[in-house]
Amino acid sequence: MDQSQKKQGSVPKYELLYHPEIPGRAEYIRLIFEATGTPYSDISNHERTGYTKVQKIITETNPPAFAPPALLIHDPDYDGESIVISQTPNILLYLGLKLGLVPEGDEMAMYHANGLTMTALDMCNEAHDVHHPIDVEQYYEEQRSEAIKKSDVFRKRRIPKFFAYFETVLKKNTEGCGKYLVGKRLTYADTTLWQVLEGIDFAFPNTVRKISKNYHLLFSNFRDNIKDQKGIKEYISSNRRRPFSMGIFRHYPELDT
Amino acid sequence: MDQSQKKQGSVPKYELLYHPEIPGRAEYIRLIFEATGTPYSDISNHERTGYTKVQKIITETNPPAFAPPALLIHDPDYDGESIVISQTPNILLYLGLKLGLVPEGDEMAMYHANGLTMTALDMCNEAHDVHHPIDVEQYYEEQRSEAIKKSDVFRKRRIPKFFAYFETVLKKNTEGCGKYLVGKRLTYADTTLWQVLEGIDFAFPNTVRKISKNYHLLFSNFRDNIKDQKGIKEYISSNRRRPFSMGIFRHYPELDT
Repeated sequence: MDQSQKKQGSVPKYELLYHPEIPGRAEYIRLIFEATGTPYSDISNHERTGYTKVQKIITETNPPAFAPPALLIHDPDYDGESIVISQTPNILLYLGLKLGLVPEGDEMAMYHANGLTMTALDMCNEAHDVHHPIDVEQYYEEQRSEAIKKSDVFRKRRIPKFFAYFETVLKKNTEGCGKYLVGKRLTYADTTLWQVLEGIDFAFPNTVRKISKNYHLLFSNFRDNIKDQKGIKEYISSNRRRPFSMGIFRHYPELDT
Repeated sequence: MDQSQKKQGSVPKYELLYHPEIPGRAEYIRLIFEATGTPYSDISNHERTGYTKVQKIITETNPPAFAPPALLIHDPDYDGESIVISQTPNILLYLGLKLGLVPEGDEMAMYHANGLTMTALDMCNEAHDVHHPIDVEQYYEEQRSEAIKKSDVFRKRRIPKFFAYFETVLKKNTEGCGKYLVGKRLTYADTTLWQVLEGIDFAFPNTVRKISKNYHLLFSNFRDNIKDQKGIKEYISSNRRRPFSMGIFRHYPELDT
């Protein structure tokens, strides 16, 4: 075995398994790779028949994945076995620990970051359910009247509740200076919440414009700080960053007013 | 310090922070304690002013919890500091690792169990959203017509999709003999899925009666096996086990047919 092969074999290789084009739930995973400068392949976006391969892998693996995103891991420590794990917060935990996006040397802070990540993802799920309140497999237009009702609740009560919560978290984490949710350096809770804020702003721009001044730490210190992080900054201006469109976060003017 | 105090101080003490009466999301946590014979206090159910205390603790802790359930941990290893963590799957992970309800000596199997737990909880969340499709803070009666629409989708497509998925997981895990989701012994993925099945059966008994024969491993091997596990069996027949009522899983005949 020559040197290059040896070296290649000594680090884990990551393949992201997701739908093509949309940022979606995979974006939370991409942000970990990008913030840590970790190479990864995104096969639905990189290979012409990538999504067929994704579906085959997640169905055939043991246990199968219920739905994308999933992560295919080739780690030399696993005796050459390729392993697939699924569920967004599960993948974030795995990569956060492997790639160092957790609080250092503080077990409980890791659980705090993990819990905050889940609350940010709950907000993401609710934003999705606003445009699909009845049936995830049907078109938006089929459930538009229910979506309008739900959007009213989401804008008036749920968004302010989530924003106020994260504002308080930032305020209480004094060593983070409003820039980080836990401790004084970047964790995957930060990259996840940042992406949710971007998504909410894309989907509900008028709402965010109107109320963001009430959450100063969240919309000034935090949001600006995360987008300027090494790795994230370069990623945002690259063509690897996919724009929001018709995925989880969608902009329907009638749901925003 | 006398011997009893020393002994008391040497093991972690767990306090479950949740709403009183209903099993709710806290039940997934209770099942870990019960299956492992771990003492815990359930302060909303044990103390007359317990829920006031719960609200105070989850608001004042740092970071605060977005919502119950939360877990208050007094661990002598944490220098006498009491720590609160929140988010159901986060608490399950923590306790699963501490109390040994994860696959032994197999890191990736731990992530598989953790991911399957999250998929079971997704099914729980969808079952909840069936009776509250528009607004979690309003009464069911205010969103009854939307709930009826959503229940049709849930019964005809989502329940079969989740059941078929877990049936496949059981089939593929050959060493589990249809009794365990991962490996050959109990994990918190099993206790969590079991509780979701109980909840779905409570809320949609006609649906389950009609289709459960299509998922033999799930409804014979698995369900019977988990309810007979040491700790779980005793718990089910104790008065600590709260019946389903008007919590996450609710039985409205018009949503079942």
